Amino acid sequence: MTNKDLIGDLGERKLIEMIIKKSESFQTKYFDKNSLKSHIGDDAGIIAIGNKFLVLSSDMLIEKHHFPKEMTYYQRGFKAVTVNLSDIAGMGAYPVGILISLALPKNLPINEYDNLLDGIIEACQFYNSPLLGGDTNEGDELIISGTGIGISDDENVLMQYGFKNNDLIAISGEIGLSAIGFEILNQGLEKTKRLLMDNDINSEFIDTSISKILSPMAKVKEGIMLKRSKTVTSATDITDGLSIELHQIHNSSIKYNRGNSEDLGFMIYEDKIPFIDTIKKIAILLNKDYQDLIFNFGEDFELLFTIDSNKINEFKEYFKDKKYYIIGEVNKSNKIQVSLINGKIKEIDLKGYQHFNK
Amino acid sequence: MTNKDLIGDLGERKLIEMIIKKSESFQTKYFDKNSLKSHIGDDAGIIAIGNKFLVLSSDMLIEKHHFPKEMTYYQRGFKAVTVNLSDIAGMGAYPVGILISLALPKNLPINEYDNLLDGIIEACQFYNSPLLGGDTNEGDELIISGTGIGISDDENVLMQYGFKNNDLIAISGEIGLSAIGFEILNQGLEKTKRLLMDNDINSEFIDTSISKILSPMAKVKEGIMLKRSKTVTSATDITDGLSIELHQIHNSSIKYNRGNSEDLGFMIYEDKIPFIDTIKKIAILLNKDYQDLIFNFGEDFELLFTIDSNKINEFKEYFKDKKYYIIGEVNKSNKIQVSLINGKIKEIDLKGYQHFNK
Repeated sequence: MTNKDLIGDLGERKLIEMIIKKSESFQTKYFDKNSLKSHIGDDAGIIAIGNKFLVLSSDMLIEKHHFPKEMTYYQRGFKAVTVNLSDIAGMGAYPVGILISLALPKNLPINEYDNLLDGIIEACQFYNSPLLGGDTNEGDELIISGTGIGISDDENVLMQYGFKNNDLIAISGEIGLSAIGFEILNQGLEKTKRLLMDNDINSEFIDTSISKILSPMAKVKEGIMLKRSKTVTSATDITDGLSIELHQIHNSSIKYNRGNSEDLGFMIYEDKIPFIDTIKKIAILLNKDYQDLIFNFGEDFELLFTIDSNKINEFKEYFKDKKYYIIGEVNKSNKIQVSLINGKIKEIDLKGYQHFNK
Repeated sequence: MTNKDLIGDLGERKLIEMIIKKSESFQTKYFDKNSLKSHIGDDAGIIAIGNKFLVLSSDMLIEKHHFPKEMTYYQRGFKAVTVNLSDIAGMGAYPVGILISLALPKNLPINEYDNLLDGIIEACQFYNSPLLGGDTNEGDELIISGTGIGISDDENVLMQYGFKNNDLIAISGEIGLSAIGFEILNQGLEKTKRLLMDNDINSEFIDTSISKILSPMAKVKEGIMLKRSKTVTSATDITDGLSIELHQIHNSSIKYNRGNSEDLGFMIYEDKIPFIDTIKKIAILLNKDYQDLIFNFGEDFELLFTIDSNKINEFKEYFKDKKYYIIGEVNKSNKIQVSLINGKIKEIDLKGYQHFNK
């Protein structure tokens, strides 16, 4: 590393690793391990407050990267709350509040600012999570930076690690639809929608995909239920794509679940991915790789979690009124793989959305 | 208001008022007043967690507005933690953690990124407040958005309101020095320093002023002591300038301290402002209005607080090892005034740093 190297030359993961490394060496030295349960790098930080556990997460949304131009200001405000509470959901905590800081370009029309605030406030109402504070500043581009505050009544917060051999891998809803929604907007809404409908793609599927990218929702209730069911061994929210999240929980297990996890790996079954045939068909029509849509885009804000295989019946009973898909299992392969419909087995490479692409 | 009006045409206060108005009408409807003690608009939000009170505040720093070009990346990181914990200090709470989200320009050298992280982490260590999480993103300019988390063991958090007639008005340290430091840098460090020293300004005073703008510190311990002393009736941190803060606490009192505060006003005594003669002399040398330096710049991160006049002896005993200056008193004038050394009395107008200047 020389003084001339720029951060644009590193990937986002490297930048985060630098923070984690510095912060761990300091925090191990200075803080009581019992009160500071977490490490930076999970969905959220955790601290003990009296007999409760506080779960905290920050996410920053930047105009250029996170808001397609078709997204209204109301939707931008709503999404900012959603992404922050999605991390709280990924820990199985219940949200108790949110703080939102805004960088606003001077030339933003007042009525759009008003719409942005409506989106934020109505999302707070939707998630039953009051707006507790924030900051406003003039900036070159719209930036919405939030912090979600959650509570767990006990210390058994759902971490990214904790799964073991034979656990089942599940998701709380469809994945890849945000990616499809994004591509439909990207290639021209009217034209692309017509192309898909002319090829017998259900219009409801198309509308759901567009709604997933413009109005994503956090699975807050589901996250709380995952924890309360006592059948789930780990969880995270899918922000950056299933590929990144699978690698992330795999690394987390190696790092923190010492002794238990050396050989743990994952097998995902392609035929269990919801709507796989429709997604494949759409991918061809949109001239995209279907595996990219499923594994490497993200923004679905579904939960990825592992179920104790001995408790699968309890899980099914507990979740009988909620949507979920079991898409794979934990094994001892030390590999992250997908079993394709054609019978082949393939590694799932670490790809997905990075703000700083290497 | 038409659809063509831009937010650049409103002042920052107006933008914040819009948020407060929307959020209050919603939160009054949906949340239990007992668990949500605070209103948006104080230094920080408050929620009850078990038998503790959580104090939360977010602040966003933007390259162009908050970081003089002479500020190193280490200092920028340190300042981001300072400003967030200063709000916690203003409530008399003790910090338990911080979250930091970064927008980083692609062309930031890696070694400067490293320095930035060092500043953040060492500030966390300095304030005994672990880094609990955050986010990194690519942005057009450097933005550091933080959330400070504090705890109060009881509900008697120091609010901006609560003062009453005859209370004494005090500050935890010198004000106006950040403004002087900023002007010295702005007019050319070497040249201006020489000019001041040639005119018998103490070099330590100059260096302190520069250090106040480049390396501001939050009065965290002092904030905790203010609360524990049980002699203080209100407090806030001075971020935007004494003028804005005095108007802010005055408004807060009218709004929340119903029935008690209709006629309350403030009288500040110019001769009690620390180092007033030196500041006046420097203002002439730098061709600035000395009252602007004292009242309208901010960035000192000192605490502004009111002391119960019946408990002034207890206060003095409690604070005998700490710096403070009593600069005025609460009266029943319903005006915010300064009594000048020349005997004249003048209104302190609402001026100060606004990100969106009207």
